[in-house]
Amino acid sequence: MTDSSREPPFIVDGLQYCNWSPEIFEEMAAGGVSCAHVTICYWENLRETIANVSAWHKRFERHGDRLLHVRTGDDLRRAQAEGKTGIVFGAQNCSPIEDDVGLVQVVHDLGLRFMQLSYNNQSLLATGCYEAEDPGLTRMGRQVVKEMNRVGLVVDMSHSAERSTLEAIDCSERPIAITHANPAFWHPALRNKSDDVLKALAESGGLLGLSLYPHHLKGKGDCTLESFCTMAARTAELMGVDHIGLGSDLCQNQPDAVVAWMRNGRWTKDLDYGEGSAQAAGFPKQPDWFACNRDFTNIAEGLTAAGFSAEEAAKIMGGNWLAFFERSFGPAAA
Amino acid sequence: MTDSSREPPFIVDGLQYCNWSPEIFEEMAAGGVSCAHVTICYWENLRETIANVSAWHKRFERHGDRLLHVRTGDDLRRAQAEGKTGIVFGAQNCSPIEDDVGLVQVVHDLGLRFMQLSYNNQSLLATGCYEAEDPGLTRMGRQVVKEMNRVGLVVDMSHSAERSTLEAIDCSERPIAITHANPAFWHPALRNKSDDVLKALAESGGLLGLSLYPHHLKGKGDCTLESFCTMAARTAELMGVDHIGLGSDLCQNQPDAVVAWMRNGRWTKDLDYGEGSAQAAGFPKQPDWFACNRDFTNIAEGLTAAGFSAEEAAKIMGGNWLAFFERSFGPAAA
Repeated sequence: MTDSSREPPFIVDGLQYCNWSPEIFEEMAAGGVSCAHVTICYWENLRETIANVSAWHKRFERHGDRLLHVRTGDDLRRAQAEGKTGIVFGAQNCSPIEDDVGLVQVVHDLGLRFMQLSYNNQSLLATGCYEAEDPGLTRMGRQVVKEMNRVGLVVDMSHSAERSTLEAIDCSERPIAITHANPAFWHPALRNKSDDVLKALAESGGLLGLSLYPHHLKGKGDCTLESFCTMAARTAELMGVDHIGLGSDLCQNQPDAVVAWMRNGRWTKDLDYGEGSAQAAGFPKQPDWFACNRDFTNIAEGLTAAGFSAEEAAKIMGGNWLAFFERSFGPAAA
Repeated sequence: MTDSSREPPFIVDGLQYCNWSPEIFEEMAAGGVSCAHVTICYWENLRETIANVSAWHKRFERHGDRLLHVRTGDDLRRAQAEGKTGIVFGAQNCSPIEDDVGLVQVVHDLGLRFMQLSYNNQSLLATGCYEAEDPGLTRMGRQVVKEMNRVGLVVDMSHSAERSTLEAIDCSERPIAITHANPAFWHPALRNKSDDVLKALAESGGLLGLSLYPHHLKGKGDCTLESFCTMAARTAELMGVDHIGLGSDLCQNQPDAVVAWMRNGRWTKDLDYGEGSAQAAGFPKQPDWFACNRDFTNIAEGLTAAGFSAEEAAKIMGGNWLAFFERSFGPAAA
């Protein structure tokens, strides 16, 4: 149990979706994790998302010594000061707002601070990265981005297609995030992002969370820490070190039925394998240097070995996300 | 009250959304209306659509002497034989199936026989006619069309955009419908259809319901019966007389708040005026020769005056819809 104040630097993970348990919360404490943005929705509608919020309320009550619900940058500073791990809610899809722009404020009230405009497929707002065509933001998409800007719900385009992502960056009056993806120049997965997207994201003040999900890594589960951190250095050259952080996409201890849900939701009767295949349909194996929340120290060391200064490494490990939270989670300036 | 058998020809309206009342049901009887496809959903989700279905169940119970719920072509023949007006349910949007391909069979079980893949805007399935871009059917759209084909839920593309419509015609293994629209060659409204669409629809065995909604008419509310029926003759030349019927889009006695709901749903905070304008935001005035269900005789006479034979006019007035219902509302042949 950790009940003493935790010193900087901050460690902030831009995305996790673990099979939450006391063991994982203990690993977060042991790894010094200040905060994680956790997914509470892939395809769930409002009511189902609220059930997932409610499940977190129970965890906060039961594990109040370890966890703190983060709604603001100040909450994150408080989690750090109290030696707890802050938890930020986010949705990987726009399904919680259903067809209703008015639900943007409702989900913000419930604590959501990130929402992807689309998840792999076409949504009512934008196009996902697995569609054959990408027409950009829809009529409703433009309305919703404006409303997200107003209330302080961050646009996340991690699973969206290229044109939709560029249009979201352009349409949004506040910086957006790509919470979990890597540069395509390093590993040309469909989910990784082009130089055009990364440059536009950085120029608009946005933030990229570098992913540790094997399908996003060069060499997948065999990717080396050195390769990952060298990629981070090249990305910092492209975007500026203030515009990158981590977004591990850690899905620890999830059964393979969960990745089937992520990919198939309720939209198809044929099985979709997403980044996997019929032969390798389950969750892929994590690299051995990042298997759980204890392993952030490996990355911090790897960043230093790749040439980042201590100050730069601290920004990537969490300082940039902290600054982003502080300027993004409240209502727009009048 | 009409309780005697009604003789052919059949009068079938491919779309109505009136503010239903005993007076309107009496007008349907007086006008000899065999059947109307009635809208039970614009933006409603499954639960809300079911409430609208339930409201119809109450009407069927209260007005059993006038109305009959039509699920099959045989039901329509029975309505005609009993001198009643058959009612077919349909959705103008795919919102009742939410994000769930499994709900296609559920809504068919509830009596829905038509479902539009999109209504003006981008949906999860296809693009609406008011979007700037039309990428065609989505991944989910292709899954849903296959499932609609399987159970016998007719694809309706009345409010969809051009490419999506052509792809729906191509993707669907059973004929589709455009229940309420006119040819753009006659009146180039955004909602009216190109020659390419009309030809592809006819070649695939589909059916076009000619609309009497003023925004779809040349001259709007001042359109003459002669102009409308001459257009019908030109459309029959283009598509073949077996591929056209009526789809009046009659919205009798609806308050203007209803057209605001149709246009704005819950997707926008800015007001959208659709085919109207800020200066003319409400329902437009009907042509005086088609103000209510009593007026189908005017159209039958107009078709004859425009050169259609009695047999051809009977097809357009209802015979074609009857044949379409008979081959479309049941499960696909094994």
